[in-house]
This record gives sequence, structure tokens and C-alpha cells, in this order.
Amino acid sequence: MAPVFKQITIIGVGLIGGSIARAALEKGAAVEVVLFDGNADALTRAGEIGFGKPVASIEDAVRDADAVFHCVPVGAMGATAKASIGAMKSGAILTDVGSVKGNVAREFRGLGRDDVHVIPGHPIAGTEKSGPDAGFASLFEGRWCILTPDAGASAAYVEATDRLAAFWTALGSNVERMDAQRHDLVLAVTSHLPHLIAYNIVATAHDMENVTDGEVVKFSAAGFRDFTRIAASDPIMWRDVFLNNREAVLEVLGRFDDDLTALRKAIRNGDGQKLFDVFTHARGIRREIIDAGQDTAVPNFGRDMDGKK
Amino acid sequence: MAPVFKQITIIGVGLIGGSIARAALEKGAAVEVVLFDGNADALTRAGEIGFGKPVASIEDAVRDADAVFHCVPVGAMGATAKASIGAMKSGAILTDVGSVKGNVAREFRGLGRDDVHVIPGHPIAGTEKSGPDAGFASLFEGRWCILTPDAGASAAYVEATDRLAAFWTALGSNVERMDAQRHDLVLAVTSHLPHLIAYNIVATAHDMENVTDGEVVKFSAAGFRDFTRIAASDPIMWRDVFLNNREAVLEVLGRFDDDLTALRKAIRNGDGQKLFDVFTHARGIRREIIDAGQDTAVPNFGRDMDGKK
Repeated sequence: MAPVFKQITIIGVGLIGGSIARAALEKGAAVEVVLFDGNADALTRAGEIGFGKPVASIEDAVRDADAVFHCVPVGAMGATAKASIGAMKSGAILTDVGSVKGNVAREFRGLGRDDVHVIPGHPIAGTEKSGPDAGFASLFEGRWCILTPDAGASAAYVEATDRLAAFWTALGSNVERMDAQRHDLVLAVTSHLPHLIAYNIVATAHDMENVTDGEVVKFSAAGFRDFTRIAASDPIMWRDVFLNNREAVLEVLGRFDDDLTALRKAIRNGDGQKLFDVFTHARGIRREIIDAGQDTAVPNFGRDMDGKK
Repeated sequence: MAPVFKQITIIGVGLIGGSIARAALEKGAAVEVVLFDGNADALTRAGEIGFGKPVASIEDAVRDADAVFHCVPVGAMGATAKASIGAMKSGAILTDVGSVKGNVAREFRGLGRDDVHVIPGHPIAGTEKSGPDAGFASLFEGRWCILTPDAGASAAYVEATDRLAAFWTALGSNVERMDAQRHDLVLAVTSHLPHLIAYNIVATAHDMENVTDGEVVKFSAAGFRDFTRIAASDPIMWRDVFLNNREAVLEVLGRFDDDLTALRKAIRNGDGQKLFDVFTHARGIRREIIDAGQDTAVPNFGRDMDGKK
């Protein structure tokens, strides 16, 4: 394919940044990938792995980029953008991969470079791993990437958005455009609440280990282990998500809590019909997710099936 | 191997019952497997698949069994045991596979056959699938099986318990003996609470689909899909678990709720340190579970990795 960009710069060489760099080179979506990371060890490691050219100064790293991808925790986006935006060339794209879009967009747009195209983005992809070694080129294949561009912007901005969309498409993603506020509500339901609940249940189980004497880990395959996977995700990234999408998360959490109160009441009152109705309904949603190609239909995600059945 | 039992009878030919039957025959742990199911279609299907000999009367099915395995929802155990115990031979073993042990043990022991060895059991194995076609012979390999025998019983009872343990060992399980009340508390943490929370989050997300317009399913790979797997488990089985382990579940749920209130407060107050501390801790538990051989270390349970990386 013809490259979408001559040069892209990745700020932050963790799971997502590293995967974008690998994918861009492997698919030929960019001619050159420049890397920067505030953590010198991570940057050195990225250079060793060889998925781009490490540059030690953030300003030098962005200077010739057609598109700069900030792949750092949401709470650090403002600082990395501020430190580098002055060095960006006119007409370049400033984008990111954060799980919260409203706050990040406001920060980027408040930096006063009207000649730089601010187009926030969020690839719905990842694993529970982090760091430069965690990335891989196929991470975005068949996954959604949401862009939250300005409404009613200039022709040049629209053209830049189309180019960024073409880049993600080249990486194998299905691109969706969405209002930032809507993104933040939808993701609060599909991602932020599940992670919070997973972290919470792991914390509760751990606190109970003084009663259960190490047996939570021993018998975790009974269901608990599913929660620990997403609760193993990067703590700084997730801290920042909750601090920056507070309103939507608290709204969704309130609804979760109301529903849980109703289930608890059903258990206390021995209301089997209520429990049965709620549980039956859940199966249908699983079916929809599998039919939508968003998960595998294999039992236990296939993880227990090595050489079995 | 020498067979542990001459004949076993499986009451209920679903995921677990069907898997015991298949495994017993495949490993030679029983010479003959007799099957009964109150659902005639399921029994016919089991006969077609061929993992044992279907018998249409529950009394005829148990008559010559050395061990009878009740593999029905916890709420149905009392009825199937009552309907069949009179036909059991003296010295035979009456066991089950339910996720709650206290209530089941009380029901079995209240049936007044002191010459039958009541030894409740619980293999910690399964998938989100159900029905006769869902089973497979390797389901129990490397998984725990908990037995909750009477303390201080007769030599014959102890010998029967050893034989039942040998049977599960032959199926590939690691057998653990435990007090029934302790089992019910540990499983409330590792299994019952996670399932309840998974069901609840799926219900909450569904209720929000009128706000999010189908996008919960579309973007479920952001974390939500992990929860839907265990929430796809059999609704009758889980209704019965909550009705029969009410006290332990409400206790654990109370702790979960306290912890969640603290996390919510941290989000509302912008207390990043508290969030970071809780999230960091969770990673350690995941590590312990992987080290204990209870889950795969592959990112995303390996489900996205087909031909990748």
C-alpha cells in the first residue's frame, strides 16, 4: 500500500504505542516511525526491539512528524502535548489513544496551536500487559478505533481526519467517528465500570484471605480468575481514566449499585423468580457479543482447551 | 488402571454429569456408567452420544450402583436423592457435584438411609455451556475437586471416602477435603460473588442500551465481554446457588459493597493515590493465580491470538 504518512511520532512506547509503531511499519502505513518516551529505559528498550527510531528530545521527536500519537496515561497527555506542540509543523495531526476523550480534547485544544489538527482517538484494543515488550503488530486487527473530531470544522481538518482514519484502517481497525461526550459514556459502561468492578472484587477477595487462608487463589478457577485478568491492567492508566471520566463513571456506577441492591434483596427474600429472570437475560447479551464478532464462542475463552476435547 | 467402581450412576446428564460419564469410561475409572435424567430429551440425547446406558426410571438407574452422582441444580438435589435413595444398595455412595455443600449435605443426611455413605462433593470445573453436548472427558484434569465428608465417621465411611477420592483422582482432579461450611464461604468469594457481579453488570449495561444505542455490544471488547462469559452460565443452577448459600453470599456481598463505596468516594474526591494503591495491589493477585497454575499467562486469555504475534 501507499504509506498514509511519511513520518509519525509515537510519544510513549508501551503496549499501545509500541503496537502502533510495529503495525505502521509492518503494514507500510508510515515510511518512518520516530519514538519518544519520558522513561529513558523504556525508550532504550524500544530501540533495541527496533520498532522505530528513538529520539531523546520530545521536541526533536515531533519536529518532522505528519502525525503525533500521544500514547501515555490520560493524566499525562496534557503535559506531553504541551511540551511538544510548539515544535510541531503547521498542518500536522495531534492525536492520542486515551480511554477518555472529553478531557483530553479540551487540554489539547487549549494549547493554542490552531494550525495543528487536534483529532482525539481511541483504539478499542489492548491486553492486560504493559511496557514496550507487550506490543504486537496485529493488536488492532478487526478492532474498533473511535475518532472524536470537531464538528463543523475546516476542509483541511476534515481531510486530516480522513487521513488519520485511513491510517487506522491500514492497521486493520474499523474506524468509527463519535462525539467525545458520547464516547465517554459508552466507554464508562463497556470498559471503565467493568475495570472498576474487577479491581474492587479482587480487593474484596484479598481482604478475605485472612478468613479464607489462601484458598481464593487456590480455587480461583471457579470464576474469580476471569476478573483478575482485567484487574491486572496498568494501575496508572486506570487511575487516570477514573479521575478524568468521573461524571460518567459515577453515573453508571450509581445504576450498577441500584441493580445490585435489587439482586441482594432477591437473595435475602429468597425470590428465585427475580434471580432467574436477571440471569436468563444475561445469556442473550453474550450471544449478541459473539454474533457481533467481539468475542470467541469457545468455552472458557478456549484457555483450558489445549489439546482437549 | 483397575476400575475404582464397577458401576456408577449419573443423575442429570448436563455439562458436569456428561463429563463425569465420559471421563469415567475414557479413563477406565468405572466399568459401567448408567444415566438418568428427568428431561427425556436430554436422556435420549445422552444415549445417542453414547457416554453411558440411559435408564428411564431413576430407581432402576441407581439399583446396582456403587456410587450415585447427583449432577442436577442444587435446588433439585433433595428431590432426586429422595426419589432414588430407597432403591440404592446398602454400602453404596451417595454424592453430588453442587456448588453449595451445607444445604445439600443436610438434605441428603435427612433421608434416613444410614447404610448409604453420604459424601458431598464439588469439582471446581466447568464452562459457561450447559446440556449433554457440552461435556468432555478432560474437563476435570488438573482441577480441584472438594469433598466434604463427615468428621469422625466409621471405618467403612472413611474407606468409601477414600474410594470416591480415588475416582476423582483417576479423572485427573486434585482432591481436597474440607468442612462444608468453609467450602461454602470460600466458594462464595471465588465463585458465587463473581457470578452475581457478572450477572449484575450485564443487567446494568443492558438497561443502559437505551442511552447507548446498541454500542455496549459493539464495543464490548473494551472489558465488558469478560463479564458476559460467566454471566452466560446456566440460570437455574445459579438461582439455586444463591438461594442455598444465602448467608455466606450476603456476608461477602456486604464486604464487596463497602469496598466499592470506598472506591466511589475516591473517584468523587479525586483521590488518585487511593485508586492507584488498590489497582496496584490487584496485579499481585493475578500473578499468584498464574503461578498457582489456575489460569493462563497469555494476554487476553489467548483468545485474540489466533495466528498472531
